[in-house]
Amino acid sequence: MKSEKVVIVGAGLAGSMLGVLLARRGYEVELYERRSDMRKENISAGRSINLALSHRGLRALQKVGMDAYIKREVVPMKGRMVHMPDLSVNYQPYSAREEDYINSVSRGGLNKALMTNAEEYPNLKIFFNMKCIGYDFQNKEALFENTNDGSQIRVSGETFIGTDGSASALRDSMMNGGVRRFNFNQYYLDHGYKELSIPALEGGGFRLDESALHIWPRHDYMMIALPNFDGTFTCTLFMPYEGEHGLDNLDNKDKVVSFFREQFPDALPHMTNYLEEFFTNPTGALPTVKCFPWNVKGDVLLIGDSAHAIVPFYGQGMNCSFEDCIVLDECIDKFGGDWERVFTEYSILRKRNTDAIADLAHENYLEMRSSVANPTFVLKRQLEFEMERRYSDFNSKYSMVTFRTDIEYYIAKKKGEWQDNILMDYCSKFSSFEELNIEEAYKLVQNWKEN
Amino acid sequence: MKSEKVVIVGAGLAGSMLGVLLARRGYEVELYERRSDMRKENISAGRSINLALSHRGLRALQKVGMDAYIKREVVPMKGRMVHMPDLSVNYQPYSAREEDYINSVSRGGLNKALMTNAEEYPNLKIFFNMKCIGYDFQNKEALFENTNDGSQIRVSGETFIGTDGSASALRDSMMNGGVRRFNFNQYYLDHGYKELSIPALEGGGFRLDESALHIWPRHDYMMIALPNFDGTFTCTLFMPYEGEHGLDNLDNKDKVVSFFREQFPDALPHMTNYLEEFFTNPTGALPTVKCFPWNVKGDVLLIGDSAHAIVPFYGQGMNCSFEDCIVLDECIDKFGGDWERVFTEYSILRKRNTDAIADLAHENYLEMRSSVANPTFVLKRQLEFEMERRYSDFNSKYSMVTFRTDIEYYIAKKKGEWQDNILMDYCSKFSSFEELNIEEAYKLVQNWKEN
Repeated sequence: MKSEKVVIVGAGLAGSMLGVLLARRGYEVELYERRSDMRKENISAGRSINLALSHRGLRALQKVGMDAYIKREVVPMKGRMVHMPDLSVNYQPYSAREEDYINSVSRGGLNKALMTNAEEYPNLKIFFNMKCIGYDFQNKEALFENTNDGSQIRVSGETFIGTDGSASALRDSMMNGGVRRFNFNQYYLDHGYKELSIPALEGGGFRLDESALHIWPRHDYMMIALPNFDGTFTCTLFMPYEGEHGLDNLDNKDKVVSFFREQFPDALPHMTNYLEEFFTNPTGALPTVKCFPWNVKGDVLLIGDSAHAIVPFYGQGMNCSFEDCIVLDECIDKFGGDWERVFTEYSILRKRNTDAIADLAHENYLEMRSSVANPTFVLKRQLEFEMERRYSDFNSKYSMVTFRTDIEYYIAKKKGEWQDNILMDYCSKFSSFEELNIEEAYKLVQNWKEN
Repeated sequence: MKSEKVVIVGAGLAGSMLGVLLARRGYEVELYERRSDMRKENISAGRSINLALSHRGLRALQKVGMDAYIKREVVPMKGRMVHMPDLSVNYQPYSAREEDYINSVSRGGLNKALMTNAEEYPNLKIFFNMKCIGYDFQNKEALFENTNDGSQIRVSGETFIGTDGSASALRDSMMNGGVRRFNFNQYYLDHGYKELSIPALEGGGFRLDESALHIWPRHDYMMIALPNFDGTFTCTLFMPYEGEHGLDNLDNKDKVVSFFREQFPDALPHMTNYLEEFFTNPTGALPTVKCFPWNVKGDVLLIGDSAHAIVPFYGQGMNCSFEDCIVLDECIDKFGGDWERVFTEYSILRKRNTDAIADLAHENYLEMRSSVANPTFVLKRQLEFEMERRYSDFNSKYSMVTFRTDIEYYIAKKKGEWQDNILMDYCSKFSSFEELNIEEAYKLVQNWKEN
């Protein structure tokens, strides 16, 4: 066992994954987690109940031997089921390729499995109810408060990695003096979200098609629903805070009832408890965080949401954080225990990609709440499906981001946006799939150059 | 006298100006200033020794009856004196119009004069050595620490206005819980600055032409010099922190001497104390801060650098903050003491303009350190000079930003950039002023439409 101790702040998805990767290498790993042990107490796992696990995330799970295990507990989603205001339904597959689909997974279940995997290493230990309250750059110690008794402890280690989420305490310490010139940007959407639910059928089974991610696009807002392994769906209503149909204005039962009756008449019969949930569940905010540098020499590094919180509209938050862990692990392969070099190389490799996925996620809100209902967009998705079926070297932007782990996010964004413009332009000239010339469209997107 | 008490956090340029404007209206005004009274003790007035006062700032000074007084104590600068590496000198006037020039003014002198003006109002009081350490949104009180004895006091008031600069404590309180969703962006240039000096001639008088702002453009960095009323010049060297010629690398006398000898041979004979100054004076950082919202109901408002710190390359930091004060004053005209409405309207009117000047200031660094040495740019400035001389409705971008108080910054930016593209394109086809067709160029920039 290596004598070096790595302290990880936060045992959420990124922290637990990173813990396993470092423990495998023989480091002495200590994880400090603000919450209590969710395997023993029934507590919320954080922001959202389920997440879309796709190939970048699966690649990391594979590396720690958990992909097969996890895939038994997820619900595959092969496309978008778009519920139009006129009650018509339009199914848009994510890809023509059999292996390319996304998976609805329980955030809590996955986190618990990762923690249990992590604790199988004797050189790894998770401390619960330990809330990070800062980092002391002078003495190179992290400060934690025991949330049970309020006592404080100082923890030392060879290096500290912050996986403590979008409101990271480690990052606050960097901003408040730890870093000479810390670039920091936090940006909140003026939309928030409410989680609601659709129960399983009595006797078991799903009330909606469980092989799709359901979307009710309503232009200025939307509802989505992801299936859970137990037959339920978790619905998330994303909408503006302000305005007549804003979250702030839906402040009594009559307003909420008439809003749902008008907007989601096909979903409503399944949402047996929506009114209580609407008023009981908290309203979630949608921050994007960008910052740089991510490290202070070899002492401290931010990864995952603490370095780059993104909005959920590309389903890439967890996948991106898991990919962070893989890239960091690969940097350790290259530079061993030279943490400063590892962290610096990691940051250079990763920053352009996390910036790209942050922007893609932001832009995809418009795609989900509006474009999916646009006939030209629907035609373009049909065209992309057919091109992916015929040509092995063609990938839609969505596929590059979601399924092509060999394509970095920043390339997926650049090439994907270039390709989208060409294909949207092409499709705008036609009104049905039969009119399209697939080969002609394929030729149009052949002359991509990275620069 | 109105019974309402307005608490202003910070008695710098913006705070003192705002104090006068509010005291004139009869409000009970209290200013709390972190530093001691600079009229009694010889202390630094803050970041930079002198500033370029132009029309937006003069308009505010006029409103408080100080423009004539101030203009006696400034040094007019009618153009840029560009010192090329080959020792040639190129003079670029700011405008063809007699009244359109900028003024080098002492930050400290102006601040002292504003404080003295403010204290003439019996309903205004300045408390010195009072460092703001936060704002308590529950009890609506600001917290100050007496820097002499460390004691803390709580101050209440009808409303609180933060003019406490780019590292605003009031803004920190808004970010750390005072505002539900606070958008915040701080961005540091990877360049910093050193202030140096050129003394007056023995027996008095300036060592360089005092009617110009001097620039030594060196592409990746630059030095500038502004004249002071006492015959001295304040030089500011702006350059990257990193790299061979970076600030971090100029860490011994030999390196600094050879750097200055190579780069600024014509300035060096005048800089009699540059070596000591280089190692004694602190290195300044260049942050840009954007945030929103600026207010919490009618309780708290940020104005000046606390709301929108900008880099100094358009000479608009102080001018913009003074214009903030005027716009706020005009909102009080409209909405009286309804602070929430005043602050909300002010924010809507002002945000797009402060965003625009922040971006213009950022972009102007490239103009100052590089473009001013570009022959096409020089030709364009000659063309603009001639167009301003001939056509009363033509204004260069620089003139719109600096001299046209009737044109908002965001319009100056939009129209100015559109116009710059056209004129640079036009000038790129010629190699001397004589070849230009002024009327033709004028016609090219006639069809501007705001949208």
